[in-house]
Amino acid sequence: MKLATLKDGTRDGRLAIVSRDLIRYTDASFLAPTLQAALDDWQRIAPHLAALAESLEHGAVPSSRFHEHDAHSPLPRAYQWADGSAYVNHVELVRKSRGAEMPADFLTNPLMYQGGSDSFLGPRDPIVMADEAWGIDFEGEVAVITGDVPMGTSADEARGLIRLVMLANDVSLRALAPGEIAKGFGFFQAKPSSAFSPVAVTPDELADAWDGGKVSLPLSVDLNGKPFGRANAGVDMTFDFPRLIAHAAKTRPLGAGTIIGSGTVSNKLEGGPGRPVAEGGSGYSCIVEMRTVETLLNGGPKTPFLRYGDTVRIEMKDRAGHSVFGAIEQTVERG
Amino acid sequence: MKLATLKDGTRDGRLAIVSRDLIRYTDASFLAPTLQAALDDWQRIAPHLAALAESLEHGAVPSSRFHEHDAHSPLPRAYQWADGSAYVNHVELVRKSRGAEMPADFLTNPLMYQGGSDSFLGPRDPIVMADEAWGIDFEGEVAVITGDVPMGTSADEARGLIRLVMLANDVSLRALAPGEIAKGFGFFQAKPSSAFSPVAVTPDELADAWDGGKVSLPLSVDLNGKPFGRANAGVDMTFDFPRLIAHAAKTRPLGAGTIIGSGTVSNKLEGGPGRPVAEGGSGYSCIVEMRTVETLLNGGPKTPFLRYGDTVRIEMKDRAGHSVFGAIEQTVERG
Repeated sequence: MKLATLKDGTRDGRLAIVSRDLIRYTDASFLAPTLQAALDDWQRIAPHLAALAESLEHGAVPSSRFHEHDAHSPLPRAYQWADGSAYVNHVELVRKSRGAEMPADFLTNPLMYQGGSDSFLGPRDPIVMADEAWGIDFEGEVAVITGDVPMGTSADEARGLIRLVMLANDVSLRALAPGEIAKGFGFFQAKPSSAFSPVAVTPDELADAWDGGKVSLPLSVDLNGKPFGRANAGVDMTFDFPRLIAHAAKTRPLGAGTIIGSGTVSNKLEGGPGRPVAEGGSGYSCIVEMRTVETLLNGGPKTPFLRYGDTVRIEMKDRAGHSVFGAIEQTVERG
Repeated sequence: MKLATLKDGTRDGRLAIVSRDLIRYTDASFLAPTLQAALDDWQRIAPHLAALAESLEHGAVPSSRFHEHDAHSPLPRAYQWADGSAYVNHVELVRKSRGAEMPADFLTNPLMYQGGSDSFLGPRDPIVMADEAWGIDFEGEVAVITGDVPMGTSADEARGLIRLVMLANDVSLRALAPGEIAKGFGFFQAKPSSAFSPVAVTPDELADAWDGGKVSLPLSVDLNGKPFGRANAGVDMTFDFPRLIAHAAKTRPLGAGTIIGSGTVSNKLEGGPGRPVAEGGSGYSCIVEMRTVETLLNGGPKTPFLRYGDTVRIEMKDRAGHSVFGAIEQTVERG
């Protein structure tokens, strides 16, 4: 099934079921007022949501036209947002851009940072920033929402605790990151509010594009209407979601509704750093990777970070060309 | 007024008002079912809570005996937990213990890390850890809960957005921290679930011990029944809470119910690293500081990190000797 949270003026919005083709929705708030409420009591509520989703597909319940811009992020605020860096190519390129070394254990121990989860943006909300000089960047990612994960859960056990899958734009401020990283306490100001796709889906909606741990479909990232990235989220994902969840749960339990991000989706090419879409490659899911490759090839970056008025669109289509999660589409505004 | 969240088998517990002397409580869930619900609509609900608190003081409403062990952390789960390092003495001692340098701007730019907020421990819950070798430590802190803080809020504006004050035990795994810090993404596994005091209080309850930005009272930290720390939270706090809040809100808004921690309370002595309680000093609010001082004085640490069965108690008494927030008291257990 596909779930959305409709903006209704409240902090947590209203739960809705969306049709597989994203064209219609039906209110689900009589089953659970919010997505968090559904996740808190998933075993009991999910079967009812699934039955309602089937009724919606068959036209057996009242429904209305679904507009993606009416949706908030599936969880407008969450109790946890932990973002991994599962695509090691991304880590290599970003570290090169900073002249930093790779961690010694980068192939065996996932990088993960604790993100702010109290104030997410909606998928069509503007990215309001006070200063362009902060180096505003997007990061196209896949994310999952978990149920309750006990402390010490293994990757194998974690597989069955993935409730929903969605997309993320992990907005990043590149000019603020190096100072925060140098201090060792991780990102804070460098990671403003993230946004998530209009719809979160149960893994079964992904059919054979889901192997229990990752999504094998290309992530479409467009900048100002032009293709910027088409990296396949099923390729070069060194740590799949069950591995990331097990990492997060090593020393504490994870509460239901925890969001785990994949990190920026990034594909190598013949062992190298990939190639821009315009040159026949699968491109990049954030600007800083593009800039690093430009620097490697031409001695300096060419693509600027986001400026006021720039728009990024992040979407994933299935093999038949249909949008799975709806699109994140955000414009940068001065504020 | 003093607020508590009583354990009732639900994820978020039940809101109660506690008497100033912490002896009796009255149910407040008819005004707001949970503390988060009260914070979400504070302007409307706080006056009703305050009136109920006055009625409780006057014996004008039904009440029951308040047992601190029946309380969960005031927010059993929160949308944000951001912990500063406002006491620079702590930062200096911990960095010395790792042989790491101080950040160049440590006197002008607060250190702050994003903590996990989805699964706090109750104030009397055990600290369950799978491995003593992780270097289990406590950190005694003061913390505030904010209302909605717009992006770009100044320290002056932040002052009026502090809703509640409480104590924290920011449990830390010292053996896991250096590896995570070296990778630059901040703490994750090194910071398991934190716990907070049984009661959170409005700043007016602190009377003249609250200057709008910090609490000028000693923090009592006992290890296995013996005094370990008596550092004054009003002394050597380089960044007060309004400064910490403004830092957190630089590039994003903070949602109502955001918890901001002070970092480990730590006092210098004549410009030095303080002195243990047993030697007439104000001691330390975490073990790693004690170990660093032992190393400085004697060439090696003597006090071990927490072992299974060890108990830490964190409490703050007003000038008349009455507990303000109730006590955090936690025993380490194998799990």
